[in-house]
Amino acid sequence: MSGTVRLFVNDDLGEGQSVPLSRDHAHYLFGVMRLTAGDRILLFNGRDGEVSARVVEAGKRGGTLLVEAVTKPLQMPPDLWLLFAPIKKARTDFIVEKAAEMGAARICPVATEFTNSERIRQDRLQAHAVEAAEQCGGTWVPEVAGLEKLDRVLDDWPADRQLMFCDEALVGEAASSSALTGGLGRGGDAPWAILIGPEGGFSDRERQRLRGFDFAHRVSLGPRILRADTAAVAALTLWQMQLGDWT
Amino acid sequence: MSGTVRLFVNDDLGEGQSVPLSRDHAHYLFGVMRLTAGDRILLFNGRDGEVSARVVEAGKRGGTLLVEAVTKPLQMPPDLWLLFAPIKKARTDFIVEKAAEMGAARICPVATEFTNSERIRQDRLQAHAVEAAEQCGGTWVPEVAGLEKLDRVLDDWPADRQLMFCDEALVGEAASSSALTGGLGRGGDAPWAILIGPEGGFSDRERQRLRGFDFAHRVSLGPRILRADTAAVAALTLWQMQLGDWT
Repeated sequence: MSGTVRLFVNDDLGEGQSVPLSRDHAHYLFGVMRLTAGDRILLFNGRDGEVSARVVEAGKRGGTLLVEAVTKPLQMPPDLWLLFAPIKKARTDFIVEKAAEMGAARICPVATEFTNSERIRQDRLQAHAVEAAEQCGGTWVPEVAGLEKLDRVLDDWPADRQLMFCDEALVGEAASSSALTGGLGRGGDAPWAILIGPEGGFSDRERQRLRGFDFAHRVSLGPRILRADTAAVAALTLWQMQLGDWT
Repeated sequence: MSGTVRLFVNDDLGEGQSVPLSRDHAHYLFGVMRLTAGDRILLFNGRDGEVSARVVEAGKRGGTLLVEAVTKPLQMPPDLWLLFAPIKKARTDFIVEKAAEMGAARICPVATEFTNSERIRQDRLQAHAVEAAEQCGGTWVPEVAGLEKLDRVLDDWPADRQLMFCDEALVGEAASSSALTGGLGRGGDAPWAILIGPEGGFSDRERQRLRGFDFAHRVSLGPRILRADTAAVAALTLWQMQLGDWT
């Protein structure tokens, strides 16, 4: 990790641009991190890449930065959605953080028949995604969608998007990560999604429905049962290695 | 996850064997889980596989189980060590939990030049590994070793053990997961270890030393900087897919 502070902002970040700071950002930069006028930080907005900026004014309730130069081009993640069934708060936070670090483009909480948690705090999860992108050197922040029923998401499934479906009924069976590359070749720019089931697994009806789709590809995540948060990171790794930007 | 309670015990688990319960286990089974005489649970001890057992006596401070039948054979993980530099408490706990879930055989906290945390609670981490094995349906619990200096671990490195070394200096370079399979072929029963650096990265001296070893193989975990806990799960996935028991 870099020692330089990185912040996600909504402002445009052209060279020479002046960036006003929100109260929260001013508190963080000048109160917590003790920066003063002349100090350098890094900014990104999800559109213009990463830029370096100098502190011009440092106040308790606000301040101004001046954009100096582009330090990193915009790097978009692959067109990959992560669908997961929310679990306990800390583990849901963790899944969102990891999805942002590992390069998912969109994070979609879905309610399944066995999902325990019927509510999410979308704004808090979005803030977690921002923080993860700030920490991991990303130039882009995935959007956290609102909670939707899995059945409805599948009703409206986009025709060209493939779905990697982590089927815990495959635990103990011969693994099938080859399913991904088998008939499909490299992903390239093809749109994909990963679906991680709830702690209690999918219902038989859900599993049957998923297995019936041409766009759905079952994979195994090894011979042990993984918790949902572990499964999310493992599935993102598997996908990124075989079809994404780790290859 | 199974609805049946699974417990790790130290006792032998032959058919017909009587298993006395510790005070903690009795409290958990009869106080927390509300089991009574005649109820069935699952036990494993890391030697005999998984067995089903019946509650014979249920007391507040103890009790007895009777082993009925083997339900799962002993499944050893591959001979894989996970070496990592301890970080903040919650993330260190997480790494141990995930290593146990994902099938590491031994978990070795190592102190590097930039490691923040110079102490670990080995007994607490071992308890996390046990709990993870109970949850994930494992029949084996990895040992959590005491904290050792990385330099000393490398001084005494076993001649035949390969080391996958996640070098964050490779972030942005072309990835090299092929390094693992390139000259090496499938891992089979070969002993391996994975090394995850601290949040601050390895020192230049450490990195140079690691690069100098024939047994050390550098891999990239993609174009973004991963937190140490994310890197641990991603590295375990990569290894298990290419050389371990997910293949």
